[in-house]
Amino acid sequence: MRIPKHIGIIPDGNRRWALFNQLTKDKGYFFGIEPGLNVFKLCQKEGIEEVTFYGFTIDNTKRPNEQKIAFTKACIDSVMLLTKENCEILVLGNTESDLFPKELLPFTKRTKFGSGGIKANFLINYGWEWDLNLLKEDNSHKKHIIPYIHSKDISRIDLIIRWGGRRRLSGLLPAQSVYSDFYILDEYWPDFKEQDFYDALNWYDKQDVTLGG
Amino acid sequence: MRIPKHIGIIPDGNRRWALFNQLTKDKGYFFGIEPGLNVFKLCQKEGIEEVTFYGFTIDNTKRPNEQKIAFTKACIDSVMLLTKENCEILVLGNTESDLFPKELLPFTKRTKFGSGGIKANFLINYGWEWDLNLLKEDNSHKKHIIPYIHSKDISRIDLIIRWGGRRRLSGLLPAQSVYSDFYILDEYWPDFKEQDFYDALNWYDKQDVTLGG
Repeated sequence: MRIPKHIGIIPDGNRRWALFNQLTKDKGYFFGIEPGLNVFKLCQKEGIEEVTFYGFTIDNTKRPNEQKIAFTKACIDSVMLLTKENCEILVLGNTESDLFPKELLPFTKRTKFGSGGIKANFLINYGWEWDLNLLKEDNSHKKHIIPYIHSKDISRIDLIIRWGGRRRLSGLLPAQSVYSDFYILDEYWPDFKEQDFYDALNWYDKQDVTLGG
Repeated sequence: MRIPKHIGIIPDGNRRWALFNQLTKDKGYFFGIEPGLNVFKLCQKEGIEEVTFYGFTIDNTKRPNEQKIAFTKACIDSVMLLTKENCEILVLGNTESDLFPKELLPFTKRTKFGSGGIKANFLINYGWEWDLNLLKEDNSHKKHIIPYIHSKDISRIDLIIRWGGRRRLSGLLPAQSVYSDFYILDEYWPDFKEQDFYDALNWYDKQDVTLGG
């Protein structure tokens, strides 16, 4: 079976899950933490080299305050959970804003935990325009741009798995996702099942990979 | 009904269609010309303001010569067909390469035909890295990057319709497609039917639009 090197996870549907379960929207994010640990462990088990979690974006921070507090806490807790695993964590986002949680500043350079191994990336207070706003260098007429963008330490994504039924990128790493295959699940992220992950891998195995060729 | 302002068309599957019809791969592109005119006319009829056709990319030019000749001719013919319609054509791509057809140089500034109206964009010898290689200016820390990329005259895409079953962007306008909803058809592009277009519009009408919020 052809296994993707790098999987992007868009854990969408937390708020819709909360409403469906008679909770207020902000309560949904807490129920997205355990699925994140589960999908990480499956990636580790299957020999995926890198996994990127779409935490929250600069766009998301325009949401009501109680939601902002809730998704920020869920992201911090998710990163902290992975510090107990064997992995190499990178948190990427705009740290120049107060909306970037101070607790995650130590992870903005890739940090090895346990015996290391799988790279686990979290996009936190991330923005696609912020990302593509090339680093201060004369980059014009460079053939390859990735070395010059903020997300330069994140590799090309092979497979993007999105929960919650929306068929869009929502600004996830535009440079790394140009050739990514998208697998969409209608289920909300807090309802994540192991089978979702294997369905995505089995689907990916049937895709050709041309990298635009 | 909520109509997208800007539709992106990924007309994929020409070569697979050709093989399926006992033709050599290069013969498929010719059969993609008429569908392009048809989808343009439907966009015009439904009041779509802008449509972008994914012609060929710098990646595509690595294909066998007879294919390169065939898809280049199909693109030139497709642009020429639209010069007989009421529209405003823009051809965007890397004109510094010999692979950019000279015949299309006059269209690299938006040009009005007939009474104008709908904007029709063709990506020709286009490359996502070429596009994002920001124009020579100090762009660092600009809040919005689109004014500084090569595709600055192409607006945000609301709906991307892809034929041929592949669930990926293949490098289509990364900055304009960050929030686009994707509608995928398994049918090959030369088999385009009017109903495909309306199925996509009806699906789009049911999507929410959050622009990442």
